[in-house]
Amino acid sequence: MKYQNAVLVCFSGGQDSTTCLFWALKHFSQVEAVCFTYGQKHSLEIEVARKIAEDASVPFYLLDVSLIGQLAPSSLTDSSIEIDKEKPAGNYPNTFVPGRNMVFLTFAAIMARSKNIFHLVTGVSEADYSGYPDCRDTFIRSLNVTLNLAMDEQFVLHTPLMNRDKSEVWELSDQLGVFDLVRTQTLTCYNGVIAGGCGECPACKLRRDGLDTYLKRKNNQ
Amino acid sequence: MKYQNAVLVCFSGGQDSTTCLFWALKHFSQVEAVCFTYGQKHSLEIEVARKIAEDASVPFYLLDVSLIGQLAPSSLTDSSIEIDKEKPAGNYPNTFVPGRNMVFLTFAAIMARSKNIFHLVTGVSEADYSGYPDCRDTFIRSLNVTLNLAMDEQFVLHTPLMNRDKSEVWELSDQLGVFDLVRTQTLTCYNGVIAGGCGECPACKLRRDGLDTYLKRKNNQ
Repeated sequence: MKYQNAVLVCFSGGQDSTTCLFWALKHFSQVEAVCFTYGQKHSLEIEVARKIAEDASVPFYLLDVSLIGQLAPSSLTDSSIEIDKEKPAGNYPNTFVPGRNMVFLTFAAIMARSKNIFHLVTGVSEADYSGYPDCRDTFIRSLNVTLNLAMDEQFVLHTPLMNRDKSEVWELSDQLGVFDLVRTQTLTCYNGVIAGGCGECPACKLRRDGLDTYLKRKNNQ
Repeated sequence: MKYQNAVLVCFSGGQDSTTCLFWALKHFSQVEAVCFTYGQKHSLEIEVARKIAEDASVPFYLLDVSLIGQLAPSSLTDSSIEIDKEKPAGNYPNTFVPGRNMVFLTFAAIMARSKNIFHLVTGVSEADYSGYPDCRDTFIRSLNVTLNLAMDEQFVLHTPLMNRDKSEVWELSDQLGVFDLVRTQTLTCYNGVIAGGCGECPACKLRRDGLDTYLKRKNNQ
């Protein structure tokens, strides 16, 4: 299936959005990528994203939304806050930046519109462990309507990972022919270590567990 | 009616948002104000807003969302994209950013949440409909739902001017006891002239026509 259209991918250089980038390259005739910086502790993440996009000949744009980090401190932007190792009971982990995906997708839509692009891709998943409200399908659908009303346009938000757990994201990258690229070039680790990562933070554990599950499943086939 | 709650007002120091500020002071026990700057404003406008807020003992916050300027095609940073030398025919003026109110209200909500405030006020109106879709009631209601889903909160967006034309906004300011304050201290003029303004720009004409209509109606009562 080809949408015969242009698409803008929200792209961070992590496992999920890199898989989305190559999903978009398969399904759309023109792909561009936008990366958001908001005071992440690891600026290496941006360089990782830029290189992956450039290697794939995808135009890469960087938007500085560091204002968001000033509005609501989280452990991803404030080095004085230690990253939660576990999800606190009855609360979101302190890696949660409230409204982050809403800000990203709103700016992405405004930028896309200026380029006459009305398809957007985001790598959010509600199969993810954290339960962030702005990763849920209901939120994305509501946002899609709100964006269309805000600008009187017909945006379409695509969420190819929405119902995939991490092992299924690995599977998708394998189907797209970029399993090795995702495994060796992406950065998911909260501590800024590329590929396999630090091995200790929640993002690394999630990534590795998903990989183990996928490889086990694949080898049993 | 008192909501017995705290509220954050999107406040520019113009006629509409100043009227909203005093509407909020009547209906809420705690009022704060946030002003957005993104480069195109006369800096006098910010000082006007700050003074009105200070005189009313309302905490005043300024958020720099000049990122919006990065979204214009001429500001994109990728050298492979040819920069538009002229504004596209049949399009919005290049000072207008579609989705602007969505950006403002999203940041206002994130800021409000960090202060444990869940009521927001914006002075948008669909009565003096400017052609901007992000002033319509339907958009605001959709945005309210999306914000609540994004952050798993219960924000309430208030739009006291939604169905008032300019003469009715003057009437409201009179009812709130701030008719003279709005008339002499607010800045609506595109050319940055306080109170009555330059008298020539569309904003001045709209303001003056509304004032004439209101005073005529009042004097006939």
